[in-house]
Amino acid sequence: MSGSAHRFIGFPIQRPTLLLDEARAKRNIARMVEKARRAGVHLRPHFKTHQSVEIGAWFKAMGVESITVSSVEMAEAFAEAGWTDITIAFPVNLPQLDSIRTLASEIDLGLLVDAEASAIALSEIPSSGLNVWIKIDAGYGRAGVPWDDTEKIAVIAGILRRSPKTHFEGILTHSGHSYHQRSRDGVLAIHTESANRMKSVKTALLERGHTGCKISIGDTPTSVLADDFSGIDEIRPGNFVFYDLMQRAIGSCGDDEIAVAVACPVVGKYRHRRQILIYGGAVHLSKEHLLVDNEQDIFGCLSLIPAESLGSPDWRAPLVSLSQEHGLVEVTEEIFNDLSIGDVVLVLPVHSCLTCDLHREYWTLGGARISRI
Amino acid sequence: MSGSAHRFIGFPIQRPTLLLDEARAKRNIARMVEKARRAGVHLRPHFKTHQSVEIGAWFKAMGVESITVSSVEMAEAFAEAGWTDITIAFPVNLPQLDSIRTLASEIDLGLLVDAEASAIALSEIPSSGLNVWIKIDAGYGRAGVPWDDTEKIAVIAGILRRSPKTHFEGILTHSGHSYHQRSRDGVLAIHTESANRMKSVKTALLERGHTGCKISIGDTPTSVLADDFSGIDEIRPGNFVFYDLMQRAIGSCGDDEIAVAVACPVVGKYRHRRQILIYGGAVHLSKEHLLVDNEQDIFGCLSLIPAESLGSPDWRAPLVSLSQEHGLVEVTEEIFNDLSIGDVVLVLPVHSCLTCDLHREYWTLGGARISRI
Repeated sequence: MSGSAHRFIGFPIQRPTLLLDEARAKRNIARMVEKARRAGVHLRPHFKTHQSVEIGAWFKAMGVESITVSSVEMAEAFAEAGWTDITIAFPVNLPQLDSIRTLASEIDLGLLVDAEASAIALSEIPSSGLNVWIKIDAGYGRAGVPWDDTEKIAVIAGILRRSPKTHFEGILTHSGHSYHQRSRDGVLAIHTESANRMKSVKTALLERGHTGCKISIGDTPTSVLADDFSGIDEIRPGNFVFYDLMQRAIGSCGDDEIAVAVACPVVGKYRHRRQILIYGGAVHLSKEHLLVDNEQDIFGCLSLIPAESLGSPDWRAPLVSLSQEHGLVEVTEEIFNDLSIGDVVLVLPVHSCLTCDLHREYWTLGGARISRI
Repeated sequence: MSGSAHRFIGFPIQRPTLLLDEARAKRNIARMVEKARRAGVHLRPHFKTHQSVEIGAWFKAMGVESITVSSVEMAEAFAEAGWTDITIAFPVNLPQLDSIRTLASEIDLGLLVDAEASAIALSEIPSSGLNVWIKIDAGYGRAGVPWDDTEKIAVIAGILRRSPKTHFEGILTHSGHSYHQRSRDGVLAIHTESANRMKSVKTALLERGHTGCKISIGDTPTSVLADDFSGIDEIRPGNFVFYDLMQRAIGSCGDDEIAVAVACPVVGKYRHRRQILIYGGAVHLSKEHLLVDNEQDIFGCLSLIPAESLGSPDWRAPLVSLSQEHGLVEVTEEIFNDLSIGDVVLVLPVHSCLTCDLHREYWTLGGARISRI
């Protein structure tokens, strides 16, 4: 065995480079498309993970017509690329109302509000055709009206329904606390709780005369692990296109589904602490960390098995420390002896969304460049 | 008082925007230049913090002639901008030898090695004029030959001195463990220990006939807090140009020296948990965190005092949670009531190097754009 990625990457790596396993990503997309079809739920994948027009086209080729993004700029870029049904899954940012209005005149634009003030601002916009969701906090505790604050939710729905400028789409949540789970049962418990809370909000709105309320949910863990989507209209997972070590720890993916890695040159070897230094730091991977086996915080893990893919995390080689450009990998004696300065190793990321955001482009294993917006 | 930055920023903010307090940054540079002059030590500031040709020119205007960078690409960009004396303070990355050779033919280029293999590779390069430092680990435990491994250090010095291609510059260290200190005494203890260890390495090399060995040290905390630089040839601090909450916690700077902040729109308010949601997340600030008062991990802190500057951290408003684009700020009742959705707040960063790396440009408080390489 040799740990150097030189052996199987089809082009020379000079510096930290984001690699994409195209076959895995396409398989991940196909599986989620099929899963949603089988479950009878509309799939509106979140594109903030890949932020690439080319990768977006892979989704379109598999029948995806509507997408989620997290900023006005992303919505503009994907609208430019031909997407006509886009939800910005972030509480509406009022300083960008002018751009939002322009965009809404060109495509079916979905927006989120979780405050009366935002709903009023949208209801007074000199434009029309805004599809507005009320963001609900179903337990995560980040954004959204608390699911049991029926009064406030109904007031916002009323504002949206009374205005000729806005169309009340329904209620939307993101159960990000599924990321804290480390078992299928834990994720399913959150899914069931969130789905039930959303359905109870819908019922409460119906009782107040607010009909036509759709329900949108769906982070990657619950979308992958749950099977029961009865009463749910759409799901919006994003990370599943690439997965990462965190999803693996949660149980959402297997080793052979992680579709991105950062190729990093080895620049130092320190035998007395059995560590290798790589050119690959916080500006290439992000400082997102993951507690492994309840004892060690890691920032990534090497994949060392030569294959026609990105391989699997090799737990004998975790990335244990990260500064701006430096990464320290703790390795076994065998791996230490096998690696030389100048070799290139692959780092599987803790959180692919943040890692990919740090790079301007992807390179497939065959050496093709894929750009990011 | 109003917390909204609208009141004093001279231009409209629509999305997370990196602001630069030009007066503070220039004062920070002037103080360090004066400090080095007084201490009789050569200043080779690290430009990885700002990565801006325009800001680099402020240093040049104050007499700085030589700089430090952390990558070949940064060295190329600053060489292009007219800098002729650049040290790449990162163990030499062998896959980039071709670019390094080209650069070395154009400017005075300093490189780092901490392994025989790297020294041999440089000694065989078909070029000449490489100024090579041996990187020493004086206690930090990241990169470098351990300071007490005199044998290995001497072997590398021998390789460099025997080759007509390389010029042995001296020994260089970065005492990054000063960042773990939270007192002046703690930082000074590290400074003294590192400086003494470096001097003992120099003596050991001299005893083996290796003359002309310079000593280069200097992170921001030790460069700011220490006064005794006897026997030291140069210092390489970088962060001091902007400082940040971490430097403030270490004791390297005061509140009124932090020179960058990210302006973020308020997008949500949650009275039941007294939190405000800002459009500003890991992709705008980085996930670098700081333990405050030994109990709370924060990702930034608001500055809420209107003034002709970036103000001061207001500890009634720490940033307690961060995801890709979302940031949650825990605030007092008074601040909660004072802020409205659509307002813009300023977030002082935990680690300015990582925050600035996430942005393509700076905006001065007067509304001038400053580009990054």
